[in-house]
Amino acid sequence: MGSEFDVIKRYFDRPVHRKDVLKGIGDDGALLALPPNSELVISTDTLVCGTHFLPEIDPADLAHKAVAVNLSDLAAMGAEPAWMTLAITLPGEDPAWLERFSDGLHEICQYYGVALVGGDTTRGPLSLTVTVHGHLPQGKALLRSGARIGDWIYVTGNLGDSAAGLRCLLGQLEADDESRDYLTERHLRPRPRLLAGRALRHHASSAMDLSDGLASDLGHILKASGVGAQVELSQLPMSAVLKSVVTPEQALELALAGGEDYELLFTVPEAEKGALATALAETGINHTCIGQIVAGEAIRYQNAGEPVELTLSGYDHFKESE
Amino acid sequence: MGSEFDVIKRYFDRPVHRKDVLKGIGDDGALLALPPNSELVISTDTLVCGTHFLPEIDPADLAHKAVAVNLSDLAAMGAEPAWMTLAITLPGEDPAWLERFSDGLHEICQYYGVALVGGDTTRGPLSLTVTVHGHLPQGKALLRSGARIGDWIYVTGNLGDSAAGLRCLLGQLEADDESRDYLTERHLRPRPRLLAGRALRHHASSAMDLSDGLASDLGHILKASGVGAQVELSQLPMSAVLKSVVTPEQALELALAGGEDYELLFTVPEAEKGALATALAETGINHTCIGQIVAGEAIRYQNAGEPVELTLSGYDHFKESE
Repeated sequence: MGSEFDVIKRYFDRPVHRKDVLKGIGDDGALLALPPNSELVISTDTLVCGTHFLPEIDPADLAHKAVAVNLSDLAAMGAEPAWMTLAITLPGEDPAWLERFSDGLHEICQYYGVALVGGDTTRGPLSLTVTVHGHLPQGKALLRSGARIGDWIYVTGNLGDSAAGLRCLLGQLEADDESRDYLTERHLRPRPRLLAGRALRHHASSAMDLSDGLASDLGHILKASGVGAQVELSQLPMSAVLKSVVTPEQALELALAGGEDYELLFTVPEAEKGALATALAETGINHTCIGQIVAGEAIRYQNAGEPVELTLSGYDHFKESE
Repeated sequence: MGSEFDVIKRYFDRPVHRKDVLKGIGDDGALLALPPNSELVISTDTLVCGTHFLPEIDPADLAHKAVAVNLSDLAAMGAEPAWMTLAITLPGEDPAWLERFSDGLHEICQYYGVALVGGDTTRGPLSLTVTVHGHLPQGKALLRSGARIGDWIYVTGNLGDSAAGLRCLLGQLEADDESRDYLTERHLRPRPRLLAGRALRHHASSAMDLSDGLASDLGHILKASGVGAQVELSQLPMSAVLKSVVTPEQALELALAGGEDYELLFTVPEAEKGALATALAETGINHTCIGQIVAGEAIRYQNAGEPVELTLSGYDHFKESE
């Protein structure tokens, strides 16, 4: 393998088109300018080969996903993405792999206007850590702690597709080619809901992104806000494709606990419902009301108004069997 | 192992004492306030077990080093450290290891006033990526590109101790206990030169930190600045301990190409020499003039004024034999 400097120069150091990058790759650190009266938002995620992705993954998909899952966190805070750093550990020399990975990386960075401003390349078992940086106007961040009793609970998009896509990739789920393509695309190429996050800034009382599954993630909002929730299962948004390839019970399980949806989960006060609908309509992103914040601390599920007992847990890498 | 949330809560989520941390660990991202009229500096480094540290390393030393090498980059830009994120990949459950690691982490964070504001814990082969964030007044960053012909070249502290310490740890170098302790401490517990970096802000024309070794790192300043350098080998600062445990030739090799010194290398215009000496004297950090910037693009070595031919290369992880 070439030297570390060659790897960075050849694959990762491309022209930056953001004026707020005063110094990108090539010094001791990156030097960046925030807009006046803004706050900085930072999020970081590590993807480890074998734990978070399959060794045979297309490197371009891997690059997309590593960036997308981080941007999803920025979206959930209502932040504008700006810059990112990449720490990548590679087992050895593989120019074709690096070429495809860096092309995928620059594609998604360009699409969302994110500048790669620094990083580190090291040798070892394949893994990558992406840290994204964004900003938003002072005092406008969407936190998990703002949900209040009576607020309505919403999600963007559909739930469960990504988990079904993963099961297709693992050979655990059979589907016709078209359905399989749709579901695996939803798993491999999540779309961070940045436009929706920005639209929510003025209307939502709390927000987070769905990475572990609705049942687990909603629990974080409830805990941070000190409230409970009532969720109407018949309202959970699911794609026609998902419903066509699994049983209704399986679809529900995937929608509630499959994980890796990277949709936004948020709460909205009654008075903001109309304004929210207008703001989100402009983004073209679907959103569905799935329940309401109530007193208490747990999630109560119901189906067409009837209470339902469910035992589910979200996806947690450390809980996997060893 | 407990769930990912337990690991973060138990070992890494400690009270934060910085008012500029609006939201630390526990939301989708960290929310941070920069001072007005400042610029953000970001630096990131990955340490992989077996490549960057030995498996038997004391976890507290590892934590110190992971933070220190990043803070060293901030020092080299002249930035004030503020926040950091940690992405740690662990092979399995080891509470004693995590306890000692997190104690070491919080110790150095507290010492330098850095808040741990986010991160990710994942399962896989042991490695960690630290990303540090700092800030400095607008337009005051120390870059590698500002060295001009006639500027004097300086380093802080002594060179080569860390590399000798590594060789002690690897059993490649014999030394009496006291010398060994001193050298290994210098390797395991590098001290980021933050005070010196801040003092240099108004006087240095360029700066960087020494991680790969003087010969290699000075090359980066020369390339970025489009200049050459003359280095007087007899002036290289070396500790009495280093000189007592290796031959003069070995000491020179370690000082020039051993790596991991984490001292600052910087250039100063003639007119700023006096002010620089005053500013650095207040920090109590030694500094030594080791040469001068000249026309050209290479490093010319001399010894007591006589030209010397040297063939050295800096430390580069990707150049190691496989």
